[in-house]
Amino acid sequence: MLALRYTTQLLLDRSAPAPTPGPGEALIRTRRAGIASSDLAVSRGLVPFSGILGHEFAGVVERLHPEASKDDRKRWEGKRVAGSINIICGQCDLCRKGLSTHCRARKVLGLYEKDGCFAELFTLPLRNLCEIPPKVHDDQAVFAEPLAAAIHAAQMIRAEGKPYITILGDGVSGLLCAQIMARLNASVRLLGKHPEKFTLCEKWGIKHRHISEVGRRHDQDIVVDCTGSPEGLTLAQALVRPRGTIILKTTAAPVGSEETPNPHGVDLSPLVRDEVTLIGSRCGSIPDALAALASGAVDVLPLITRRAKLAEALEALRLAAAPDQIKVLLEP
Amino acid sequence: MLALRYTTQLLLDRSAPAPTPGPGEALIRTRRAGIASSDLAVSRGLVPFSGILGHEFAGVVERLHPEASKDDRKRWEGKRVAGSINIICGQCDLCRKGLSTHCRARKVLGLYEKDGCFAELFTLPLRNLCEIPPKVHDDQAVFAEPLAAAIHAAQMIRAEGKPYITILGDGVSGLLCAQIMARLNASVRLLGKHPEKFTLCEKWGIKHRHISEVGRRHDQDIVVDCTGSPEGLTLAQALVRPRGTIILKTTAAPVGSEETPNPHGVDLSPLVRDEVTLIGSRCGSIPDALAALASGAVDVLPLITRRAKLAEALEALRLAAAPDQIKVLLEP
Repeated sequence: MLALRYTTQLLLDRSAPAPTPGPGEALIRTRRAGIASSDLAVSRGLVPFSGILGHEFAGVVERLHPEASKDDRKRWEGKRVAGSINIICGQCDLCRKGLSTHCRARKVLGLYEKDGCFAELFTLPLRNLCEIPPKVHDDQAVFAEPLAAAIHAAQMIRAEGKPYITILGDGVSGLLCAQIMARLNASVRLLGKHPEKFTLCEKWGIKHRHISEVGRRHDQDIVVDCTGSPEGLTLAQALVRPRGTIILKTTAAPVGSEETPNPHGVDLSPLVRDEVTLIGSRCGSIPDALAALASGAVDVLPLITRRAKLAEALEALRLAAAPDQIKVLLEP
Repeated sequence: MLALRYTTQLLLDRSAPAPTPGPGEALIRTRRAGIASSDLAVSRGLVPFSGILGHEFAGVVERLHPEASKDDRKRWEGKRVAGSINIICGQCDLCRKGLSTHCRARKVLGLYEKDGCFAELFTLPLRNLCEIPPKVHDDQAVFAEPLAAAIHAAQMIRAEGKPYITILGDGVSGLLCAQIMARLNASVRLLGKHPEKFTLCEKWGIKHRHISEVGRRHDQDIVVDCTGSPEGLTLAQALVRPRGTIILKTTAAPVGSEETPNPHGVDLSPLVRDEVTLIGSRCGSIPDALAALASGAVDVLPLITRRAKLAEALEALRLAAAPDQIKVLLEP
């Protein structure tokens, strides 16, 4: 089968062996796959992963393991599915504590020790799957993973007393957070750089400003950093009020590391001086995301700026890195 | 009068003009002053401050402003006092919100736009003052400021279900946090580097380990970083469990900044991946600290490793930077 693989470099593998589902697993045929910034990080060798890329998908269950029960077979075969990207053990202390997205033995689809969905076929455990409601199109369902993360970030916020919330960054993560958080009892604005994304905010009735235009007045109750850049965290510290909260959403660009040193580091002394709470936020609930899509609460289709065939995946990844792109989709 | 001043360099000023108390202020005669790591940062030009150093003190009120009320005069003159180091406006949005330690117009004793206590005399507003209880010696009361900060850090922790708490760093801040947090319903250990400080922990019945001996197993519910170094935050991220909490206590050594770039920065991606909450913590309540000292809950006298006369302050600051010193006191 066709698959986009990273080992020491990015490679379109035209004769990748089709995977076979293990016990408790489903074989899924990819209908849509989304290119995320973490895929770009993998393709640049910034993430210690080697294998088939991709973790955002909408697919159809092709078949289960031969020993799967008749009930499971009936439940899943032929169904359209989205799914959690964390493959968990269910037995470690964190799984038992209800923190299974942090499972100590976890694998992560297309990101850590598990081949991903930039392929014709891939596998996931049945317990990771969630059926896509009939009224949610594949083009929408492919956003389940980043939307789940945005909903999760919103769940980490206590929106009491109509707080001022600033969302930093106008990529997919920022645009999804803005839509979700605009439904809180809060005053929400998005800071970005790209006029075409402001047009979307206008359509959604969300306040927006160019990132260079705002005062750094330490007056925001909550700042959600979706920039994926060290400068984002520095700006977030200048915007948030003393004893306020910063939600740090993105892992793709590490804030300096031994491999990719950041010459200036990030000065965290404002965080201590202002007694700010910084909360890291990663994955959310796929069922929550599908429910939000089914309810029409979130508008994702305008985020699709380009489509490419899986056979053109190399070129598509290159294009996805351009600042004018929001979400680039791969199709079979 | 004698005063230790920093402008472009550290200078013992033998003919500094004695300050005069403004309306609402007290003139205080220094009886003890403590040298803190932030004083060392000022003396190295790492803090944008120019003036008389020092913010840890126990003193006696010499006199008030000439127009002070008879009641105030009777209340304060001749009394032994400790005090809050934040001089606030009482009128800005943060003061009105009860966040007056973050007052937008604040000055900070010996750290920001207000001459400090490394002098024979200094001034503070009456509302900053707190009378030292009779049973608390000057040698103890001089710890009020760092102890208040340690108590404040403990108040930021929710110690539910007997959490595992690791305190990183065996300086004054770490040793005070350890004593305060050992009284929580928690399993507390201190990680340090210096055998003489482990001896103190043994006396206090607090678990301790050498910082190089512990596994980086992501299994601590709460980590309190009192190291004041970027490496501390990196280690804290390796020790804390997913969804755990890191309290970041120290501002003295910024985690990289334009002035003092940290070549490797701090990689905050573990914080996002593990959805950790990082809380900055700074000043606490002086009355709480004096009450803790009066109750005998905290043992501070063994932290005094050296005493010097104010006239020897230059040499004392140099000595205070040595790793075998805990707290160096200045006396008149």
